[in-house]
Amino acid sequence: MSKIKTYREMINSKIKNIRIIGSPDELYKPINYILSLKSKRLRPILSLLSYSLFDKKIEKVTGPSIALEFFHNFTLIHDDIMDNADIRRGKNTIHKKWNKNIGILSGDLLMIFAFKMLENIDDESFKKTFKRFNNIAIKVCEGQQYDMNFETKSQISEEEYLTMITLKTAVLIGFSLELGGLIANQEKGITEKLYCAGEKIGISFQLMDDYLDVFGNSEFGKKIGGDILSNKKTYLIIKLLEKSNSNDKKTILKLMNNDDQDENKIKFITDMMIKYQIDKISKNKMDSFFKEGIELLNDISGNSISFTNLKNYFKKIRNRQS
Amino acid sequence: MSKIKTYREMINSKIKNIRIIGSPDELYKPINYILSLKSKRLRPILSLLSYSLFDKKIEKVTGPSIALEFFHNFTLIHDDIMDNADIRRGKNTIHKKWNKNIGILSGDLLMIFAFKMLENIDDESFKKTFKRFNNIAIKVCEGQQYDMNFETKSQISEEEYLTMITLKTAVLIGFSLELGGLIANQEKGITEKLYCAGEKIGISFQLMDDYLDVFGNSEFGKKIGGDILSNKKTYLIIKLLEKSNSNDKKTILKLMNNDDQDENKIKFITDMMIKYQIDKISKNKMDSFFKEGIELLNDISGNSISFTNLKNYFKKIRNRQS
Repeated sequence: MSKIKTYREMINSKIKNIRIIGSPDELYKPINYILSLKSKRLRPILSLLSYSLFDKKIEKVTGPSIALEFFHNFTLIHDDIMDNADIRRGKNTIHKKWNKNIGILSGDLLMIFAFKMLENIDDESFKKTFKRFNNIAIKVCEGQQYDMNFETKSQISEEEYLTMITLKTAVLIGFSLELGGLIANQEKGITEKLYCAGEKIGISFQLMDDYLDVFGNSEFGKKIGGDILSNKKTYLIIKLLEKSNSNDKKTILKLMNNDDQDENKIKFITDMMIKYQIDKISKNKMDSFFKEGIELLNDISGNSISFTNLKNYFKKIRNRQS
Repeated sequence: MSKIKTYREMINSKIKNIRIIGSPDELYKPINYILSLKSKRLRPILSLLSYSLFDKKIEKVTGPSIALEFFHNFTLIHDDIMDNADIRRGKNTIHKKWNKNIGILSGDLLMIFAFKMLENIDDESFKKTFKRFNNIAIKVCEGQQYDMNFETKSQISEEEYLTMITLKTAVLIGFSLELGGLIANQEKGITEKLYCAGEKIGISFQLMDDYLDVFGNSEFGKKIGGDILSNKKTYLIIKLLEKSNSNDKKTILKLMNNDDQDENKIKFITDMMIKYQIDKISKNKMDSFFKEGIELLNDISGNSISFTNLKNYFKKIRNRQS
């Protein structure tokens, strides 16, 4: 069994053992429901991989790493309400299965349980980790608000977009790596480097998501062009609007102001993207962030097998087709 | 200037100095808006009063006490969304002034800032305070869910009602006193007693709220009978349904199933409450919880002037007329 699979099973069994139980059911069932849905457990796995660079006592980091999974799931619950999304991980979202109020409150509770998981941290690294977690949590909220603001904003620059995905997605990936270093009691220079590496790679993953939504392999069952249909302002669209001539831009903007669920719209915009080499531009951007992240990692000394595991895991995620 | 007023000004100036600033505006403006509304600052004041029983260095507790005010305001933001309430402290609620999504997310952020305020606690009392705060926060969410469940539940027992208000309201009042003891590094026997005293008194305050909604003095500008009009299941209604004969009960239930905003409904149900002495029963219950709380406090040794201040503050709140 690969290290990743072992770690994922450790995380899953830890989540099962924590047993978030209590009354009333309306509050606790939704939390257990979302935590039971199939998930990569990306963030805690990254913490375990990062910790194992420095230390073998992996059980020291499993508890705290669950805080990241809980926090991430809290954001999913609330984001899905705000985005009116019915489906998450192939199943009904909490506010769809129950109702919005239950979604709000069970999300709140899951965030508190995320903080509660930090109780597992040793005294020596507790307070600095707590402070960092607070700052990261604040940034994630800011990212979500920027994302919501973009919906009604007509023009978004590349820089604004990168700031948004950094806050909304990448800072938590960065902190996932940093947490491993913090719990292994590494000095600030190292934990900061871990954070930065994770942040860069987190940005590349989000750019990858945007890319795969248009240029992904539909054989894997993923619906292609969903972002185009929903007029989502992804990196690809932002670059397309930036690069296209005024005639093309007019047509694209007209299509984007249209809520029609038209397959021709996907084809037209995809063709435009190819015309202006947006696929290549995106790939290059993605690769450059990924490379920057890996280079930062290379600068850290730690167990070499663990380094290979961590880098292979990152590469596996980057090379996915859907 | 009374001690309470001094403390309130300390809290208000501390909140101003913390300056929760950041971007985007859509996230930070609502938080600063709700924190600027006129408020008693009951919870932090209780922490300051409690701390001053044991120690004079009041500046040690002001920062952490703001965590309670922030957490309380976070619950108000989210509760108002769930209850569809348009007005809070005489002003538009956040989701009314902005929108529901902004209400959800700015509430989330304010909760994180509540945790952030705990960073101000000295290392020696930090972790135990953090753990207690987490457990209290969980209970408050449970209380809100019970309260929502009651809306669609036909029969609620006195015990269920008391459990709900304990969780939703009283535990945070209890913790407000406990926090003072924790920061003053008092032993567990004392901090537990502070918690219990505050919890009992918190229950009596909520019973008082229920009572004043029907039997309060309208001269003070409060609208009388609001709970009756909105068919809210208060302590008074629960006791009335318990005590009334089957004929009266039938009429009351019929009125309660009616959404009419009829002044006659207020008069009829108030008369019924007087007929079954619900006013006296409520007052007795309230007094008995209040007395229990004060007796627990009397059991603690501390600065006698501070004791007088604390007890006088409690009595002032209990004796309010609206």
